[in-house]
Amino acid sequence: MANEKKFVEKITARDTDFASWYTDVVREAKLCDYSSMRGCLNYLPNGYAIWENIQKKLDKYFKETGVENVSLPMLIPESLLQKEKDHIAGFAPEVAWVTKGGNEDLEEKCCIRPTSETLFCDVWQKQVKSYRDLPLIWNQWCSVLRWEKTTRPFLRSREFLWQEGHTLHATHEEAEKRTKQMFQVYYDFVTKDLAIPLVCGKKTESEKFAGAEDTYTIEAMMHDGKSLQSGTSHFFGSGFPDSFNIKYLDKENKLHSCYETSWGLSTRIIGAIIMVHGDDDGLVLPPRIAPTQVMIIPIAQQKEGVLDKAKEILDKLQKLNIRAKIDDSEKSPGFKYSEQEILGIPLRIEIGPKDIEKNELIIVRRNDRKKITLKINEIENEIQNILEEMQNDMYNNAKNFLDNHIYTAKDMDEMKEISKNKIGFIKAMWCGDENCEDKIKTETEGFGSRCIPEEQEHLSNTCVCCGKKAKHMVVWGKSY
Amino acid sequence: MANEKKFVEKITARDTDFASWYTDVVREAKLCDYSSMRGCLNYLPNGYAIWENIQKKLDKYFKETGVENVSLPMLIPESLLQKEKDHIAGFAPEVAWVTKGGNEDLEEKCCIRPTSETLFCDVWQKQVKSYRDLPLIWNQWCSVLRWEKTTRPFLRSREFLWQEGHTLHATHEEAEKRTKQMFQVYYDFVTKDLAIPLVCGKKTESEKFAGAEDTYTIEAMMHDGKSLQSGTSHFFGSGFPDSFNIKYLDKENKLHSCYETSWGLSTRIIGAIIMVHGDDDGLVLPPRIAPTQVMIIPIAQQKEGVLDKAKEILDKLQKLNIRAKIDDSEKSPGFKYSEQEILGIPLRIEIGPKDIEKNELIIVRRNDRKKITLKINEIENEIQNILEEMQNDMYNNAKNFLDNHIYTAKDMDEMKEISKNKIGFIKAMWCGDENCEDKIKTETEGFGSRCIPEEQEHLSNTCVCCGKKAKHMVVWGKSY
Repeated sequence: MANEKKFVEKITARDTDFASWYTDVVREAKLCDYSSMRGCLNYLPNGYAIWENIQKKLDKYFKETGVENVSLPMLIPESLLQKEKDHIAGFAPEVAWVTKGGNEDLEEKCCIRPTSETLFCDVWQKQVKSYRDLPLIWNQWCSVLRWEKTTRPFLRSREFLWQEGHTLHATHEEAEKRTKQMFQVYYDFVTKDLAIPLVCGKKTESEKFAGAEDTYTIEAMMHDGKSLQSGTSHFFGSGFPDSFNIKYLDKENKLHSCYETSWGLSTRIIGAIIMVHGDDDGLVLPPRIAPTQVMIIPIAQQKEGVLDKAKEILDKLQKLNIRAKIDDSEKSPGFKYSEQEILGIPLRIEIGPKDIEKNELIIVRRNDRKKITLKINEIENEIQNILEEMQNDMYNNAKNFLDNHIYTAKDMDEMKEISKNKIGFIKAMWCGDENCEDKIKTETEGFGSRCIPEEQEHLSNTCVCCGKKAKHMVVWGKSY
Repeated sequence: MANEKKFVEKITARDTDFASWYTDVVREAKLCDYSSMRGCLNYLPNGYAIWENIQKKLDKYFKETGVENVSLPMLIPESLLQKEKDHIAGFAPEVAWVTKGGNEDLEEKCCIRPTSETLFCDVWQKQVKSYRDLPLIWNQWCSVLRWEKTTRPFLRSREFLWQEGHTLHATHEEAEKRTKQMFQVYYDFVTKDLAIPLVCGKKTESEKFAGAEDTYTIEAMMHDGKSLQSGTSHFFGSGFPDSFNIKYLDKENKLHSCYETSWGLSTRIIGAIIMVHGDDDGLVLPPRIAPTQVMIIPIAQQKEGVLDKAKEILDKLQKLNIRAKIDDSEKSPGFKYSEQEILGIPLRIEIGPKDIEKNELIIVRRNDRKKITLKINEIENEIQNILEEMQNDMYNNAKNFLDNHIYTAKDMDEMKEISKNKIGFIKAMWCGDENCEDKIKTETEGFGSRCIPEEQEHLSNTCVCCGKKAKHMVVWGKSY
């Protein structure tokens, strides 16, 4: 048991210092580390395996809605980036520029993609002639680069992994429908597969993506009460396609504008998994996304029959497509428990000579340490239920936390009072004026507008800040 | 049938102009096109779907041998790239340099990875202390960039997609074993899943990867007799790890060098699929790798019951996990046949009122147009066999082509004679001297050493070039 302690001591208690706790968990679970390339991360096997599972699930959901994957260049010529004016204004200050190729200076410098709207329009410009060429429902899994000054694992780094979907449509309505459809795909994925409850809605004008008409966002509340923007879906209207002169001929041979959307979800979401579910002992992974769902830990494994029985159980689980492993290393069981807990593996199975005598095994849930004793031959019938129950319990637990940390404010005194003394989000009415938005953020020391939820509540008639007529109920919060 | 013709006319006949045929097929099958970013390609849905299937299969084979995936940065600081002298000499002339981030000039410029040996060593340097930390069997799927002057779809472009595996071991033997193991994984994948026969073996000194002790290569013969290097596996010895000062302590606390390997396969392989299997009508995809394996084309689909029957067949195939689609667009059947042929979809099923009356359907194999008439209720039992037979026939056909285009030369007159009048490879003995290698290449106008096969044949006692004592039998050929 000495070893077990040693491990946990490496992790700062979550309530003592949330930021240190976070970096400790990332390090001890070996999810990622800093590269010698400043501002960039190495995604290590344990961290990347989570991303691979996210990819696998999301990609399946995308394809069920008709998405096709592509891969466009990582470089954008300067002239191409400049074609849409809001877009270049938004991204120019934070791109990395390639100015030399081999030993030669380039005639035109090019940047590493910070996002690929311009590259998709570049392809479409050549491909789209007629209504028969539409819609185009494309996506790519790739990395993008933004020259950030500060770095935090998964949350902010110069290069990060993501998917970016880009679609082109013949009508305004169809594009808007697709924007909302992908927003819904994100919502379902994050709530159901990641067990993360969400607040969601439209972004205000000032928080929208550079060049977008509407931005829809899903926002998750971390254990410190801050929000993490976890996925966004943008409706561009025809601004981008028009800038690139992408038009199509309809059946009557008339020329029309096209309508565009884009939507993205990145490795930031791994930060959300850590900060929503993690605890003082390390990571806690939702069963549906965990690279390893069950770790079998034999006790007194040198005794005859123990390892055989453990392997028999492993075999049963793998036949059910449960992602299970057996830890038959020479470490002590206590040390193995501690490792399994740090890594956030949802279930561990303890099996030793005494259990085998009784034809039993013990399952321990990572989230709440609940122990379940089963007859060995019950495992095949029960394991899927146990994983699903744990998944649901994790969601409900996080949902309670979220619900218990959303407050209502009717005036600025209440806003300031809550923002000073509580962690979490605040619901309050807003007139729609950007000045009020700025003032609220300043006077609450950081509570910005997170979103305008679709399901509006009428909290009062007037803006929480200026007292003029209110237009929307907005959710406010600090954010990562 | 007029439409059908129109399509094929867009493709140059393969034997008239192989290079034009190739670009025509790539364009008409919509696999990729050129980006406005010079030298870079857009991998379009039809092309990228092939790459996705390659990834899916190879990744599975990798993981069965214990490979873990990671993701390291796309940028390499100049000082890091310079740590291994042969490596920097090999790559410095062809990398792209980032010199500005946002609006600032960088203190140290960094290059976009041309390959990632240095980045993997950078991670390992921090992680490897003891024998317990070894081996590390890592891989990443990513893109790399080399500032090429000329570009051909899939074969040569500035940015290309690949996987690069990098492994670190405690012993020379173990690393060498891994080098050969991954070489074998490539061999099995390319021959079995892509139906491409191979010549394989070690590269000569001059053809080795920059910094490697040994490079193993798989070489495929294209339909024009040229070779395409289709995958390589490198043994580095301890040169790289020593340059990065990566050492480990053994059980007795003694410090040792580590041994490294790397191995890669890229989107070039899609070029090989096209140039080995394609014909005058377009692409021909091996069933195991084809994104769509079966296209069902209803005839007289407006007649009652035809579409229903087609959908019934689709349903049956999908239940068997066959990747099938139905083309119920308004185009004529002839036009649809032509499209299916250009796209290289292995099988098409023709089903019309007359077939339904007889309770039959017709299957046409893409590779040889062979027609198979089946009772509709036989399809479930037969489809897998038909696909497998076609896969095998494609391999055997390509294997015959390869075997019929390998010649033997005993002296330079024969070498020159064959290289002038034949397409294909030449087997000939070699003394091991680089000067002879160069001379052979010059005097045959491009027949370079492709590899030294493991299964050596004793063709004669003397070098085909200088007449001195021969060391190896080498396979020579022109290459892409």
